[in-house]
Amino acid sequence: MRTAVKKQYKVAVLAGDGIGPEVMAEAEKVLQVVADKFQFGLTLTPALVGGAAIDASGEPLPAATLALCQQSDAILFGSVGGPKWTGLAPDKQPERGSLLPLRKTFDLFCNLRPGQIYPAFAELSPLHPRVSSQGMDVLCVRELTGGIYFGEKGRTDTDAFDTQRYSVAEIERIARVAFDAASKRSNKVTSIDKANVLQTSILWRETVERVAKDYPGVTLEHMYIDNAAMQLIRSPQQFDVLLCDNLFGDILSDEIAAIAGSLGLLPSASLNGNGFGLYEPAGGSAPDIAGKGIANPIAQILSAALMLRYSFGEEDAARAIEQAVQQCLAQHIVTRDINPNSTYGTAAVGAAIVATLRQENR
Amino acid sequence: MRTAVKKQYKVAVLAGDGIGPEVMAEAEKVLQVVADKFQFGLTLTPALVGGAAIDASGEPLPAATLALCQQSDAILFGSVGGPKWTGLAPDKQPERGSLLPLRKTFDLFCNLRPGQIYPAFAELSPLHPRVSSQGMDVLCVRELTGGIYFGEKGRTDTDAFDTQRYSVAEIERIARVAFDAASKRSNKVTSIDKANVLQTSILWRETVERVAKDYPGVTLEHMYIDNAAMQLIRSPQQFDVLLCDNLFGDILSDEIAAIAGSLGLLPSASLNGNGFGLYEPAGGSAPDIAGKGIANPIAQILSAALMLRYSFGEEDAARAIEQAVQQCLAQHIVTRDINPNSTYGTAAVGAAIVATLRQENR
Ligand SMILES: [Mg+2]
Ligand SMILES: [Mg+2]
Repeated sequence: MRTAVKKQYKVAVLAGDGIGPEVMAEAEKVLQVVADKFQFGLTLTPALVGGAAIDASGEPLPAATLALCQQSDAILFGSVGGPKWTGLAPDKQPERGSLLPLRKTFDLFCNLRPGQIYPAFAELSPLHPRVSSQGMDVLCVRELTGGIYFGEKGRTDTDAFDTQRYSVAEIERIARVAFDAASKRSNKVTSIDKANVLQTSILWRETVERVAKDYPGVTLEHMYIDNAAMQLIRSPQQFDVLLCDNLFGDILSDEIAAIAGSLGLLPSASLNGNGFGLYEPAGGSAPDIAGKGIANPIAQILSAALMLRYSFGEEDAARAIEQAVQQCLAQHIVTRDINPNSTYGTAAVGAAIVATLRQENR
Repeated sequence: MRTAVKKQYKVAVLAGDGIGPEVMAEAEKVLQVVADKFQFGLTLTPALVGGAAIDASGEPLPAATLALCQQSDAILFGSVGGPKWTGLAPDKQPERGSLLPLRKTFDLFCNLRPGQIYPAFAELSPLHPRVSSQGMDVLCVRELTGGIYFGEKGRTDTDAFDTQRYSVAEIERIARVAFDAASKRSNKVTSIDKANVLQTSILWRETVERVAKDYPGVTLEHMYIDNAAMQLIRSPQQFDVLLCDNLFGDILSDEIAAIAGSLGLLPSASLNGNGFGLYEPAGGSAPDIAGKGIANPIAQILSAALMLRYSFGEEDAARAIEQAVQQCLAQHIVTRDINPNSTYGTAAVGAAIVATLRQENR
């Protein structure tokens, strides 16, 4: 009998500020349990980032932290920032000074933002029960390094301009991420554009259609951005993967977050072309509730699940975490951001998810 | 005793195709009643447009129709298009071939799209009752002739670009429309931009702030487009007037329409700097229900109210129409797009609004 060589993953754990450390502690416990259960090796190495790093070394992204990230297979990021550091120069601030250089260093061109309406918590959604009861399970795939935010721009006293520019190569690589993701989900991609008026959208549409030919099992549809903004509210259950440029993805991912209803449940991922990624909750560092043991750890735990799926290909482990989270939600084991009457704290929710995962083990 | 000289308004009535003629007939009756009641003269002159004009003369916007518009104080537009004309070349199609040249000829740089959640019909909204019960009464003011849709654009086989360009003059004139409108409403303007990344947005924000100084009674706030897309879903009651560039207004006006819940209730206006405007329902020509007497006339009637307000300054007459519409809604006198069990048709709803207006007269 041969012993299979265990896969080994190295994770840079950058908990950061505010609620970051306490929710990260729960995500680490969950990761250790699934590593054990699904038989892979996991090295979780902590490093300073954001305000905590500024306090220790004067820099929001110290060289040692960046070096650790470069030696790792993925970054699990908590959250950064707080009132203590708001007076600093923009590029020295916790968020700008850490996330922007990380995106740049690792060429993280792709942002993934899943949004779900969970049956047990459809009431969290600001949508009418006749809509939210249909559920929502969408993944917004957003191009992150091109488009109008990064094109040539300028101004005079009387005039200003911004340029949106996309190349076929840029569109292709983000489209592949979307189709790959759809293949692991419900096999549908809705590509968002404004092809009736924008040249970049026409190129976007042509390129996406060409990429689609490599994914015969995935259905492709095109939708104008204004119609998509409307349809997400009317019938979000129609969508699986939304493929968006930088600007349209910025808008729709936030619309999806609003529809899902709770920021405390929303993970996110930023990927490059080599499977490397940075995974973080969609919410912020919430300094007002930091250290009280009441922060919701689920977004951080689901971010760890995304890491297992998109950087490590450990789909079963990722699903196990997501199912354990859903079970805890169904049992109303939630922090008080989800249910104001709840008595469960950060650690109790984490422990319940760990216990569920262990139970499933038997 | 002097006899006041009655004000006289000339309206070009372009009913168009599909349900256009039947809903326009109701709007005309309503207009005649308020003209009588509020003592102004009104000349309603019909002309052909869209498919009906193509059938009669081969052109979607015949010279005689354009000439009538030029001799009028406003255009009341129905809707154009239908399956009969979809095979024509793009610039000969009913919609493109009539609305685009009209916008261009009259320099209609401003699009107004009001959106309301009516208390009696909050259930039409796809928002949760806890949100929709707070109501919504928002006016989206959208710049219509500039921005990324009209900037320099181009492409090669591997690359494409679009340019968003705004001048201070363009921003100023649309901002004034928004502040003027807010002065007649709830005195709040929310200006939408992405000033953290776009140069055009920085210029937009600076210019809007300067214009705001001329309106000390109006509160100005700025909001990023992605946050606005979120806030409209979470708490639409916070907004009064939304001031948007062309692209952002395109997206948010449709989001507002989705939140309002019924296209059959939504009017729109396109204005130039001289008070001239084109007024039309936000919905389309609905050829599937044309001629059946079941189309909802309210969007057309509310478009006529907008004309009275924004082109003629007949605020009292505009309000009287809007209140009569609200009363009929409150009494559930609605067509079946609003209530599938309703037995009221187009003419019955129109008659009820006319009767309400006459009653108020006494
Ligand atoms: Mg955003
Ligand atoms: Mg639109």
